[in-house]
Parts: sequence; structure tokens; C-alpha cells
Amino acid sequence: MTTPDDVLLARAYLSRVAEPANLALWAFVQSEGPVEAVAAIRADRAPQPVRAACEARRADVDPDADLAAAEHKNIRLVVPESPDWPHFAIGALARAAEALIAEGRRRRPVAQSGRPERDSGDPVPPLALWVRGAADVASLGARSAGLVGARAATRYGEQVASDFSYGLARAGVTVVSGGAYGIDAAAHRGALAAGGSTVIVSAGGLDRPYPASNAALYDRAVDTGLLVSESPPGAAPHRRRFLTRNRLIAALSSATVVVEAATRSGAANTAAHCFALGKPVLAVPGPITSPMSAGCHALLRRSPEPALLATCVDDVLGAVGGIGERTDGALGAPHPVEDARMERRRRLDALDPLARRIFDGMAVRTWLRPDQIARRSGVPPVEVIRALPALDLAGLVDESDLGYRVRPVRGVGAHTRVQ
Amino acid sequence: MTTPDDVLLARAYLSRVAEPANLALWAFVQSEGPVEAVAAIRADRAPQPVRAACEARRADVDPDADLAAAEHKNIRLVVPESPDWPHFAIGALARAAEALIAEGRRRRPVAQSGRPERDSGDPVPPLALWVRGAADVASLGARSAGLVGARAATRYGEQVASDFSYGLARAGVTVVSGGAYGIDAAAHRGALAAGGSTVIVSAGGLDRPYPASNAALYDRAVDTGLLVSESPPGAAPHRRRFLTRNRLIAALSSATVVVEAATRSGAANTAAHCFALGKPVLAVPGPITSPMSAGCHALLRRSPEPALLATCVDDVLGAVGGIGERTDGALGAPHPVEDARMERRRRLDALDPLARRIFDGMAVRTWLRPDQIARRSGVPPVEVIRALPALDLAGLVDESDLGYRVRPVRGVGAHTRVQ
Repeated sequence: MTTPDDVLLARAYLSRVAEPANLALWAFVQSEGPVEAVAAIRADRAPQPVRAACEARRADVDPDADLAAAEHKNIRLVVPESPDWPHFAIGALARAAEALIAEGRRRRPVAQSGRPERDSGDPVPPLALWVRGAADVASLGARSAGLVGARAATRYGEQVASDFSYGLARAGVTVVSGGAYGIDAAAHRGALAAGGSTVIVSAGGLDRPYPASNAALYDRAVDTGLLVSESPPGAAPHRRRFLTRNRLIAALSSATVVVEAATRSGAANTAAHCFALGKPVLAVPGPITSPMSAGCHALLRRSPEPALLATCVDDVLGAVGGIGERTDGALGAPHPVEDARMERRRRLDALDPLARRIFDGMAVRTWLRPDQIARRSGVPPVEVIRALPALDLAGLVDESDLGYRVRPVRGVGAHTRVQ
Repeated sequence: MTTPDDVLLARAYLSRVAEPANLALWAFVQSEGPVEAVAAIRADRAPQPVRAACEARRADVDPDADLAAAEHKNIRLVVPESPDWPHFAIGALARAAEALIAEGRRRRPVAQSGRPERDSGDPVPPLALWVRGAADVASLGARSAGLVGARAATRYGEQVASDFSYGLARAGVTVVSGGAYGIDAAAHRGALAAGGSTVIVSAGGLDRPYPASNAALYDRAVDTGLLVSESPPGAAPHRRRFLTRNRLIAALSSATVVVEAATRSGAANTAAHCFALGKPVLAVPGPITSPMSAGCHALLRRSPEPALLATCVDDVLGAVGGIGERTDGALGAPHPVEDARMERRRRLDALDPLARRIFDGMAVRTWLRPDQIARRSGVPPVEVIRALPALDLAGLVDESDLGYRVRPVRGVGAHTRVQ
């Protein structure tokens, strides 16, 4: 199954026409479909917020040229309609975006300081992802750890980042970070040194490694891992794109570790996105005399939901999930124990499109009645009621007197239960 | 008002005849009075657990000689019957000991690891305190901070200890520690450098500074602070005495900070005593690569009641209480703002002995009915009912449908309420 060219072209157009993480544009594309949405934008007949977001560039975008340039650079476009779209990872953003729309207002994630983070961007799914590298895109977000922190890291922070990353990679965990100096680079290098897989989520186009001196690191990540960006080739890494990029690091990581950070920093912003998505955040303590550990200590005293203390790789593995399934054997050897997340992925992939849509309309923490699921997924109630028993049998949802919800990963099918 | 000689002699005898923190001996002295208890021990007609505790030394103790030797060394004996006995600080131990007796069994405080701490000693009040120094004994435990940690401290730990201690002393807080190498010594020195008051709680006799090379530090502490021990002059600092000594550091501190500690350490033991007494425990984070911070990190991840994160002096002041009352002015100048704890002390001192006994029989967290208070304090119910309104008026207790309890210090009288 391949993605129709018109959809690919439309998504390529959308990835350049507006800045990332625009809730109105995402909602418009969801309701109209990408091809129709692009036609409306080009004809300047989209709703006002969408027109405002696209006005500056709508006439100048050339998706054919972008796709051709990308192909030339081994960059490919993955879209929600592609078979390898990372539904699992992006689902958390989709649910958060839907909740925002349902509330009818734009709410921003709150930074660890308790004050609203300026410009941090809403939790909106990407309209498309430009990717380069050998790793599987569909399984992004499964058994992965974000390792983030200061560019101006200390030797201590860099040592911790590369030690953690090495240990995580040895345990089969994908290390996700932002490709920057300092903690990011140490994290990517640790994973590569262990022969593991690492994902660089870039704020600009994948043909523009930032910083440029990390270009060799980007090239090495491609062999076993991935480069990911929601901006097309050639896009510059503007300040705001770093902040919206951070929500992708949060979404593509099962748990995120802040290794070193000043109190108001990009890493604190990434942590805020994780909290907003309900994902575990860990923080590494350090000397109280080091300003580079102040952000970590702020996360550890965050109230009411503090970050978890990370003092060793096992702490991170515990938050990533699948403890006790570590590979201590040969690097790159297939994992002997079934990973519950991968098992869930397989079961999700086996669903027919309608059941999949119903599943995507459900929530992890909230019990929903079939009529509520029908409204959220846009599927007729009768179809929802018909599909739910099959989802239950597949071990994907839980049922109670209050309704249905997504079953936590640990509990996918009794026969594959881990612990 | 002076203490009768026979009481002083009896308490001096008791402080040597058995090892500290013996619950049976303390209970026996409580019920019989010190003079009667000593007579019974000397005549070998005390209850069996008391006889067992005193058997080895009961015939050899010479309290007259001990008191004379102490006086010669400027050491004095303070006893519960003395006007300057630190009722407030020791009260927490007394309530915990009474709770143990009420439960009819000996329960040990639980270390931060969740495992019972071996030999850490029950929360039993001292039978008497040998003290030396200029500071007021009665106000021990009011507005004071324990600063404890490893003897084999790092430079980082010693720097933090002396910085914290300096800042606390500047804010009028008494720094309590154990007089040992490393964190202890740095804490005492920081307070002295700020011209503040520091308390060394010693595991052996006050004429035997331990380590001997800290003798000069002991001598300096005497000028503005205190040396405190429950062992008489000449007593050696045995291992078990360090552990029972730790409960006194916990009791004599409004809050205790663990600056650096290995996972199983004396500082962790002191923290366990604080938790058992319901006193705030703070821990200073450090590099995860430093074994000397591992104990602090274990306290920070303690469940269900983790230690508070301490990254600056204000964190400690917040736990000690009386924030916003810091003296930033001349060292040693009288404090301009009323300290709520001192105010409470004054009000307690103004109570008649019966009301005081009733107050001591009440609990901080549990509402008790008058008949329960009567049983705990050994005062007839009719007297309890008569005294409670006065205690309420004095702002010392709270009343509810469930009964009465000790009012938290912050709320002593609306007109002196601090923040």
C-alpha cells in the first residue's frame, strides 16, 4: 500500500506553508482531509485562523520541488496516511489537541515554574514528518528515552548523558534528543557507541544540521537511527521551531530525562510538554552549586507532580517500561522477550481502518461511553458498539461500568504480560 | 527554684547506670520518680527489664564523684525537674516513647531504606543531659537546624555544610550537629564564623571530645553555644552511643538537613529518627557519580514520605519555620520579630505544673478526648476538663468535635501569627 501522490503533495505543501504546531490548521486538515484543505488554502477560502497562518507563504510553496530536493538528499516524507506513520507516538499529541479543540480554547502547557511557557506551542500533531535514516518510523515512541539538557553542559552532565545513553542503548532503548551541543550530542554519541539506535529530532530541515559542526553526528545517526523534522529541506532552525520541536521529542519518547538544565531552558520546555502529555519526566540531580543543575532541581521539587529522580540507567528503564527485559547479550541481537509495546503495535496494525479510528478516539485515563467515543472518532455509534468487543478481545481496551478506555501497555493480553 | 540535690544525684546515677535510650528504665523512672527508682535499682528490686539494664554497673556508680568531676570541668547536669530542661524539644521523644509503651511493644524507627534500622534505639527521652556552654538550654530545639552528614565528606559537601550553616546562623538559627569530622565540623565552623550559636551533641562524655583533634572546635562552641551529652564525664563514645545520640540531634533540631551521606550511614540513621518524630528532613542533592550523595538521593526518593530537596539556605529556613524573620542586620543583635516558637515556650513556662502536665499528655496530630488526655497525662479527668479552656485561650491547643490537640507552632495566638 502506498500513499497517493496527491496526499503526499498536499502534506508536503502543508509542512511548509505554516509554522509547525498550528492548532487551527491541524483541525482544518483533520476535518477536510489534506487535499481539500490545500485546495482551500490555495484559493484563499479557508477559515480565518487558517488563512492567517498560511497567508505569508501560500502562493510560494512548491511541494513538487521540495519532494524532489528531499529525495535527492535521501530524505523521505512520512504522512498520517502512510503505512509507517508513528500513530502510537503521535496519538498522545492528537488526543491532547482534540481535548484543546473540545475545550474551544488554546491552552498552553505549563512550564515547571508554574508560569505559562511563552511560545512553547500547543500539543498539536505534526502534519507530516520529513525523515532520513534506517530505523523503523512506525515504531517511533515505543521503548525510547528522551535525553535532553543544556548546550552549555558541564563535564559532569555530558558524562552522565553518555553513560545513561550507552546503558539505555545496550538495553535496546532508542535514545531521542535534539542534535545540539552538550547534553544532546553526548546522548546521541553514547547510543552510537553502544551500537544502538538514536533519533535526532531537528528544528530545521534535515539537510541543515544544527549546529553545523554536528553534521558528522547527524550522518552517523542515519546508519542505525533516524533524523526527524516537521520542517522541509532548507528550512532554517528558528527559535520558535526549537520550542515546537521539543513537543516532538516529548511525543517520540516513552519517558524523558533532563540531564542538566538551567531553570528556564529548552529542556525545561521539553519537560513541560511531557507533563502535558502525561509522559514520565526524570531529572538527574547535581551539585547545588552548579547553575546547570538548577533546572533539574526545580523539576524535582515541582508540585504537585514532581519529576522522578534519575541516578542510574535502571531508573530510566523503570520509567521507559519493560524492566527485566534488558538485553545484556550481543549488541543488536534480536530481543528474546516480547516487548509489550511492540506487541501492541502489531495488534494495532492488524486492526481494520474503522476499528483503528475508533481506538484512536479513545482515551488512556478517562472512561468513555460508546456515544462519546463515537463523537470523538467520528464513527457512527452503532459501528463503535460493534467494534468494541473485538478491541477488548485483542487486549487493546479495558471495559468497566463507566465505559471503555485504552488499556495501559503493561497489560496487553494476559499471555504477554511482562513484569 | 533549684533542683533538690537528691533528684540531681539520682539523675546523675541514672545517666551512668545504664546505656542511653532504655525504654523500660525511662518508664520506670517516669512512674516511680528518679529518687525512688534509684533506690529500687540499688536494692535490686526493680522490674526485670530494668534490673537487666542496670545490673552490670548498679553497684559501681558514684554520682557524687561524677557531679564533682563535672563541676570541675564546667559541665552541669540538667534534669527534667530543672527549670531549664528543654521540655519542648524532648516532648517529641516523650510522646513517641509513651506511644511505644501504650502499644506494649518496642518498635524501632524505620530507616530510609524501608528496613528496620538495627540498634538505632527507640525514641526514648534522655534521663538527664550533661551540658557545657553559654547558650540557653531550655530553648534547645526552638528555631534550630540539624546539619548532619558523612565524616568522609567531599569538598563539595563541606562547602555546602559551611555555607548553609553560615546562612542559618546569620538568620538566627542554631546549628546542631555531632562534632565529628567532615560535614559535622564544617557545620559547626560555619555557624561560629557567622558569630552564631552551635550545639555539639556528643556521643561520649563532654570532657572527651571526639575526635580528639576537634577539641578546639568543642572549646569554641562553648562560648556562644552548647555541648550536650546524655553520658557523664569520662564516658567513652561507643558505637551504640553514636546511634542513640542521633535521636537527640533529631529531637534538638526543628528540621534536619542531610548534606552528604552514604546509603547506610549515621546521617541516614539521624534522618530515620527525624521521620519517626515527625520532624522535617531535608537532603542536599549532589552528583550521582558521588557515593557520598547516594544517601541523600535515597532520602529524596523515600516513599511514601520523601525528604525535602535542599538547594539553598531558604529551603532550610522554610522547614525550620519563621521564614521572613531573618536577621540580615548586625550579628548577634536581638531579633526584631517575635519568634512563634519562643512565644510558645514563654506561654508554656507560664502554665502551672498541672496544666503543663496535661499539655504534655496531648498529641500534635491526633485529636484526643478529655478522658484520653487524662489517661495519657495521669491527671484526673475533672482537672483536665477544667484546664483545657485555659490552654485554648493561651493559643496552645485547638478544639474540634473530635477533641483537643496541640496547636501547630505557626498558629500560636492569632495576634502573633507569623508567616
